[in-house]
Amino acid sequence: MDVPAIPARLEEDALGTRFIPGGLAYGIQTMRAVENFSISGRAIADIEGFVAAIIVIKRAAARANRRMGSLDERIAEAIDQAGSEYAGAVGRDDFPVDIYHGGGGTAANMNVNEVLANRASEILTGRKGPNPVHPNTHVNMAQSTNDVIPSAMKMALGGELAVLRTTLAGLVETIAAKEGAFADVVKLARTCLQDALPVTLGQQFSGYRVAFERQIEDLALLEASCLRLPLGATAVGTCFGASTDYRAAVFEELAVLTGKSYQVEEHLFDALQNVDHWVRVSATLKAIALVLSKMSADLRLMSSGPRAGLGEIVLPAVQPGSSIMPGKVNPVMPEMMMQVAFRVIGNDTTVTRAAEGELDLNVWESIILEALAESIRLMRRSIPLFISSCVAGIAVNVERCLADASGSLALSTALAAIYDYPTASAIAKHAATHGLSIRDASVAHGLLSEAEADLLFGDISAFTNPGRTERLIARFRAGRRT
Amino acid sequence: MDVPAIPARLEEDALGTRFIPGGLAYGIQTMRAVENFSISGRAIADIEGFVAAIIVIKRAAARANRRMGSLDERIAEAIDQAGSEYAGAVGRDDFPVDIYHGGGGTAANMNVNEVLANRASEILTGRKGPNPVHPNTHVNMAQSTNDVIPSAMKMALGGELAVLRTTLAGLVETIAAKEGAFADVVKLARTCLQDALPVTLGQQFSGYRVAFERQIEDLALLEASCLRLPLGATAVGTCFGASTDYRAAVFEELAVLTGKSYQVEEHLFDALQNVDHWVRVSATLKAIALVLSKMSADLRLMSSGPRAGLGEIVLPAVQPGSSIMPGKVNPVMPEMMMQVAFRVIGNDTTVTRAAEGELDLNVWESIILEALAESIRLMRRSIPLFISSCVAGIAVNVERCLADASGSLALSTALAAIYDYPTASAIAKHAATHGLSIRDASVAHGLLSEAEADLLFGDISAFTNPGRTERLIARFRAGRRT
Amino acid sequence: MDVPAIPARLEEDALGTRFIPGGLAYGIQTMRAVENFSISGRAIADIEGFVAAIIVIKRAAARANRRMGSLDERIAEAIDQAGSEYAGAVGRDDFPVDIYHGGGGTAANMNVNEVLANRASEILTGRKGPNPVHPNTHVNMAQSTNDVIPSAMKMALGGELAVLRTTLAGLVETIAAKEGAFADVVKLARTCLQDALPVTLGQQFSGYRVAFERQIEDLALLEASCLRLPLGATAVGTCFGASTDYRAAVFEELAVLTGKSYQVEEHLFDALQNVDHWVRVSATLKAIALVLSKMSADLRLMSSGPRAGLGEIVLPAVQPGSSIMPGKVNPVMPEMMMQVAFRVIGNDTTVTRAAEGELDLNVWESIILEALAESIRLMRRSIPLFISSCVAGIAVNVERCLADASGSLALSTALAAIYDYPTASAIAKHAATHGLSIRDASVAHGLLSEAEADLLFGDISAFTNPGRTERLIARFRAGRRT
Amino acid sequence: MDVPAIPARLEEDALGTRFIPGGLAYGIQTMRAVENFSISGRAIADIEGFVAAIIVIKRAAARANRRMGSLDERIAEAIDQAGSEYAGAVGRDDFPVDIYHGGGGTAANMNVNEVLANRASEILTGRKGPNPVHPNTHVNMAQSTNDVIPSAMKMALGGELAVLRTTLAGLVETIAAKEGAFADVVKLARTCLQDALPVTLGQQFSGYRVAFERQIEDLALLEASCLRLPLGATAVGTCFGASTDYRAAVFEELAVLTGKSYQVEEHLFDALQNVDHWVRVSATLKAIALVLSKMSADLRLMSSGPRAGLGEIVLPAVQPGSSIMPGKVNPVMPEMMMQVAFRVIGNDTTVTRAAEGELDLNVWESIILEALAESIRLMRRSIPLFISSCVAGIAVNVERCLADASGSLALSTALAAIYDYPTASAIAKHAATHGLSIRDASVAHGLLSEAEADLLFGDISAFTNPGRTERLIARFRAGRRT
Repeated sequence: MDVPAIPARLEEDALGTRFIPGGLAYGIQTMRAVENFSISGRAIADIEGFVAAIIVIKRAAARANRRMGSLDERIAEAIDQAGSEYAGAVGRDDFPVDIYHGGGGTAANMNVNEVLANRASEILTGRKGPNPVHPNTHVNMAQSTNDVIPSAMKMALGGELAVLRTTLAGLVETIAAKEGAFADVVKLARTCLQDALPVTLGQQFSGYRVAFERQIEDLALLEASCLRLPLGATAVGTCFGASTDYRAAVFEELAVLTGKSYQVEEHLFDALQNVDHWVRVSATLKAIALVLSKMSADLRLMSSGPRAGLGEIVLPAVQPGSSIMPGKVNPVMPEMMMQVAFRVIGNDTTVTRAAEGELDLNVWESIILEALAESIRLMRRSIPLFISSCVAGIAVNVERCLADASGSLALSTALAAIYDYPTASAIAKHAATHGLSIRDASVAHGLLSEAEADLLFGDISAFTNPGRTERLIARFRAGRRT
Repeated sequence: MDVPAIPARLEEDALGTRFIPGGLAYGIQTMRAVENFSISGRAIADIEGFVAAIIVIKRAAARANRRMGSLDERIAEAIDQAGSEYAGAVGRDDFPVDIYHGGGGTAANMNVNEVLANRASEILTGRKGPNPVHPNTHVNMAQSTNDVIPSAMKMALGGELAVLRTTLAGLVETIAAKEGAFADVVKLARTCLQDALPVTLGQQFSGYRVAFERQIEDLALLEASCLRLPLGATAVGTCFGASTDYRAAVFEELAVLTGKSYQVEEHLFDALQNVDHWVRVSATLKAIALVLSKMSADLRLMSSGPRAGLGEIVLPAVQPGSSIMPGKVNPVMPEMMMQVAFRVIGNDTTVTRAAEGELDLNVWESIILEALAESIRLMRRSIPLFISSCVAGIAVNVERCLADASGSLALSTALAAIYDYPTASAIAKHAATHGLSIRDASVAHGLLSEAEADLLFGDISAFTNPGRTERLIARFRAGRRT
Repeated sequence: MDVPAIPARLEEDALGTRFIPGGLAYGIQTMRAVENFSISGRAIADIEGFVAAIIVIKRAAARANRRMGSLDERIAEAIDQAGSEYAGAVGRDDFPVDIYHGGGGTAANMNVNEVLANRASEILTGRKGPNPVHPNTHVNMAQSTNDVIPSAMKMALGGELAVLRTTLAGLVETIAAKEGAFADVVKLARTCLQDALPVTLGQQFSGYRVAFERQIEDLALLEASCLRLPLGATAVGTCFGASTDYRAAVFEELAVLTGKSYQVEEHLFDALQNVDHWVRVSATLKAIALVLSKMSADLRLMSSGPRAGLGEIVLPAVQPGSSIMPGKVNPVMPEMMMQVAFRVIGNDTTVTRAAEGELDLNVWESIILEALAESIRLMRRSIPLFISSCVAGIAVNVERCLADASGSLALSTALAAIYDYPTASAIAKHAATHGLSIRDASVAHGLLSEAEADLLFGDISAFTNPGRTERLIARFRAGRRT
Repeated sequence: MDVPAIPARLEEDALGTRFIPGGLAYGIQTMRAVENFSISGRAIADIEGFVAAIIVIKRAAARANRRMGSLDERIAEAIDQAGSEYAGAVGRDDFPVDIYHGGGGTAANMNVNEVLANRASEILTGRKGPNPVHPNTHVNMAQSTNDVIPSAMKMALGGELAVLRTTLAGLVETIAAKEGAFADVVKLARTCLQDALPVTLGQQFSGYRVAFERQIEDLALLEASCLRLPLGATAVGTCFGASTDYRAAVFEELAVLTGKSYQVEEHLFDALQNVDHWVRVSATLKAIALVLSKMSADLRLMSSGPRAGLGEIVLPAVQPGSSIMPGKVNPVMPEMMMQVAFRVIGNDTTVTRAAEGELDLNVWESIILEALAESIRLMRRSIPLFISSCVAGIAVNVERCLADASGSLALSTALAAIYDYPTASAIAKHAATHGLSIRDASVAHGLLSEAEADLLFGDISAFTNPGRTERLIARFRAGRRT
């Protein structure tokens, strides 16, 4: 950090005084926090949208306090201007507080209070410092860390959830395209990893699509719930220091500044005490991760080989697969995706542990924020790569898919539907023992004529279509009765 | 198990033949499953509503198949009657399959198929056995384990969720009563376990109430989603063997038999592939557990003592607290509640791991069912005891609560709101150093006159009420300006 | 529960008096606990060895107290006799306290104190009741719940760990037998699910064996650590009420009664405060579960098919695999095993949460005990079935294994070792493009003569043996240089 | 990244050709990996010691291959020199592969292979590029990603574990100092958060100390196990391409280069298949985290107040505690520590999920490495701050501690030991009802004379000392008998 040669200033807080290098954007409390918590290498500035959200709250509060007559007009304007300057320029030099900090976010809130107070003072006097604009008295007026930080979390994570939703929509679109392209590819379904009945690859992909569509719906609900903020609750939910009019005004100003329809939480004591909202958010992120992991594991399995695996599909080759084995190509994109999922699952454990707060405030919100922001970040960055370098380029081995489906002993299910289970079971046993297809075993066993066998098993794509299957079975049943 | 002296019968399945003791309600496949899986001491009969749900599906299917003309009328009626007989009499003797069984629930489905087929045959012929009613051909007609078991899970767990919701409603009612009773009890709020501003105990309890009300809303949504069943999907989602008309009819019959408006899942491939629905259910159960644990931990903390703790409340004494220390009474009910919560949290991990299925079917549903059913069971049994032996009987030490609130250094927040933060901070420091109250320090410091101090700090219940606080502060600010 | 018509007795504890049905083995405190905690359907009697361990502690304490002169000889003998009677007959009628109970195990300890006091009184007077033998004064003399329960946990779980170790030894033996049988079966190794170099199936199985051998070593260490008991610490680690001589004597008596060399914990404050020992036990159980799950997943994968999967091995068919698809057989034993693993993993989460105690005693030991005992129970019951119905009967498709290994493009690794990576890579590409084996592509590409190709690739079992591979490569490298 | 104007070079791999900016230290495969995986913002260079460990393996391999005569002397020396240059200068510009990458670490291995090959070529010819030194043929000679990456993980994490051990030793030392300082501070022990018997604060702190000493022992064992490397196993455990002599030589060279006595893993198939070793490492990290969290929670509890909490100890004030409440100071250091613990617990979940590999290789090692490295990093950075800004500065409120201990109803335990439990219980009840101390209630009840009461309860520090307690009780018992 380059600090220009501005004279140091002496600042004071409840614990004493400290010289602050003149160029530092923040003040004494942030300096203490930096010394107390140099742990993770991750600062509040690194959490997408978080500091920006605190800043916009400060601006809205300054405007609202000015409207109330509680805050001098010039000070309010200076804070507002300072906020607008920093809004788009949040960096670690100015907002260096480690994301791991105790005290329920006080250090994060004070970091912003100090930066804006310093800059506002500078706007008014040419010099940084708590005069004439004080970080607590003015910038933090009618606020507490305990309402500001949870509100900023919701604003920041709400925005991130929206980005993730858009990202998932892209994945849905790509899957839908493959679903269309694979609509007629007949393949074997497997249950318990054992040969079952035919489906189309398009049908299988539709399962992925619908699962992600469901996540998108859930995300939309969670985003909406992120519009409810406990702003105005102040320290313990009693709105101490925040007047009724201020509480209305600050939401009006927030709407003006953000264009979003934030509303106050219905119940402020609950809002400070409980964070099960984040447990739900985490659960949805985990559900997304699980569906991603399941789809990725399927892709690995179906593309296994190239020779001695299932070999049904071919994933795009994006890098050589081995430093020692030439010719090897690995499913690296699904494997990357699965590791992201494992991390998201771990983050849910962290959120769960941190969700058990105590008494009037949950003070573990920093780690909840860190964990959720990471989960979202990892998924919204990895999914586009998963789309472009994997899903979009999946190719199919159509012949192998059909051959595998045609050879399944489970085709005997058609015989069970037409005749009965024991009859079909006997044919399946015969086929297994003699290495025959169900079609051939039906003929060999004398159950079906060649023509009947061709009719029933000649085009197994029929078995992937409820209507066609139904007509076929009905026809045979009818024939059987006569 | 008492087996009457009925002659053994010889049964056959795909793997061979076995003699079955004549009195056994089930058949060869269940017998194999019992031998394969004697592990947990917990049978499918032990999962609330699960076997009953499979039975009702079998009855609905028999009726629907009869309507289609696929199933002989006498056989259908016998199955229906057998089902009605067993519906209310599900026991481990007849449904002994261990809840830990592989194969995606085949053994559970076949257990019911066999019991109903045996009994239906007996109704028709006086003798158990697969003739004339066959477990696969007739009882399982147009069904697969893969659509029956997930459907039965939703029916069973949906019912259990409803019970849990009612249980929580009872807790909400009790908390609301205490909230009313404690509406005027002023106490200290604590953040970071440090003395903060006053609240009423009623306000604090309102936070518990609202948190549980939110869980109840979530449970209602989940119950509704449990009305969607993949019935008719059969083995892999293609509805193989289940005609269009049958699929309509089976839901009609299910409505008749259960009085509930079950509907078919919108997307059957998704329904077999993915179980993120249960991840959401588990997350809500976990959220309930976390709120229970948080409230319980609070009760332990507030009732700590009786002498050298916070001592704000007194929990009902329900048993002596020590085998060695006479006079000790422990918060055993909250501690029991917390251990239930820890188990529910662990079950979520199990569900999460099992939720990663593969290809066309998730085959880990047994363990998901076991984990979720246990989580619900533990909470719906423990919460009523928590209510009656703990929450309903909480008493308050009103004097101590008020004294603690009155002594808090954080009352200086009022001075910060009226004057500024540094001024208030100086008073707080003075009070801390000299062991004074903020009121007395304000006077000693010359900031307030005795009369002003009495006005501001004389009745700190004002600080728990936004309107009263606002008027007080406004009055002082106004006075200050003049 | 059948209670004979013995007149009820009036008992008293710190909370008041209660009539106790005359036949009840326990007393007033247990009765309260039964009413307070009817939750899980699982009683302390259901935890293997737990009540028996408490009983033996009571007997040892009675003998030690008698030696100290603190306990009347007749009372001591009556307690000892009562303990010996109940030791082998622990049932839920007499020890009904729910495993979920708060208070750090007081109810469990008092349940045993009361049963033994009642029986000892009965021995001496013909009537149950706290006279002349009192549950606290005499049976619990020089003990506290806080040293008795953790000691009993270690004794009980230590014994269970030993059983699990023996069970695992059986699995190791079976795997070793298969390892021998499969020593010459050449198959394809897969990394990232893609075709890699050849190994023998025996080599692969040796990996399972060694992993379990490592778990066995770990279990042995943990068992040893379970021999250290905090007995004598009494309530808070200060040994209040337990004299130095008593503390020596009680361990001597324990040795006599159990034949095991239990020793006192080195540091008693630590022993009551911290339970990270159980976190380690849980981690080892989890490690076992993970290895079981990995092996099971491998077996499912290798036996996938029977036609359209890897089809390398065949698992014993233990039950029909589908209610609808005749001929299907599922890998139910590995699937059962994996679900057990998922439960064990979930239990570790529960143990982890409960391991965070507070101040002078961790009071969450009940749920830790329940979780660990279940994890051990599930594994020690399921593994023998996994052995007998799965592992012991694994058969191999030798031809398919060899064919798959021979066709791998990764055999080009030999060319990379002899020539260089780019050369080998070109051959691999050629083989992939033209559907050739690496052998044939080497010839087609002109890199090797037919004779050389036969020498290098004619018997790929050489590639599974370091020495043979080395000699082959050296020979070719030498030839290349000349 | 500043890339000087060196002409671009054309590189080729199995997938095609790419122009590489001339100044890039790495090559085509790394470039592909960077494009494939830009996800987490964390590169392999960010994992402490990881790239350095791969580099030293490359150097040892080059030396060993040269000794075998497999590698040209000049090439070997150039690789060795390149390695020595990069060893101390590992940066993200040169080693940018995202830690989230699929393929079992191939990209990480190839990144190092390419950088060293390029630099070695440059040393020999003045130009970077795969000629004359090739990343696969020469730098990776006799190695595979599958033995190099697990070996480097053990080397890197083994080193980190050692650092953590040293850090914990510092904590132990500080706690031991406080233990000494607090040796005579009598305070109340609490079980179930309820008043129990007296202990000294030193005794309580000794519990923390011993718990951390146990973790240190565990860490030492794990470090030792990190000295066993699967180096030489190559791709699938068969040592393909790594001769017997090479395998001996590479460990000799590793010893020379690192000064550490690395040895080859005893069983190479196991070493590639299974990663339960890391589950154990993770469990120990979790155990450390749990003990840290427990101690931190205790410190929060004991320092709660300052007025309306337990108020037994005072933590150093390191920053103001509230943006709105003047005078508040929060236990921020323990709170930071607990959040670190929550993260470590979450990382264990991630490691657990990733530990279930498949077939011949676990390919999830990247995320295991990331999670474990983070857990260690967070703890080794936070613990020193926890020491210096919290533990070292803890002060005690000696009077309050003694007063709380003296008032405990549990002092009646002494009466139970001397007389019997019912007698003591009656005194405790009397004391509770009348607000008396046990001492005064004993006198009021007529059980003790004033002199006896003074003798027994006059100096309750006696109750923290087994010998003194024993003598006191013996004296009273003796007196009672006479």
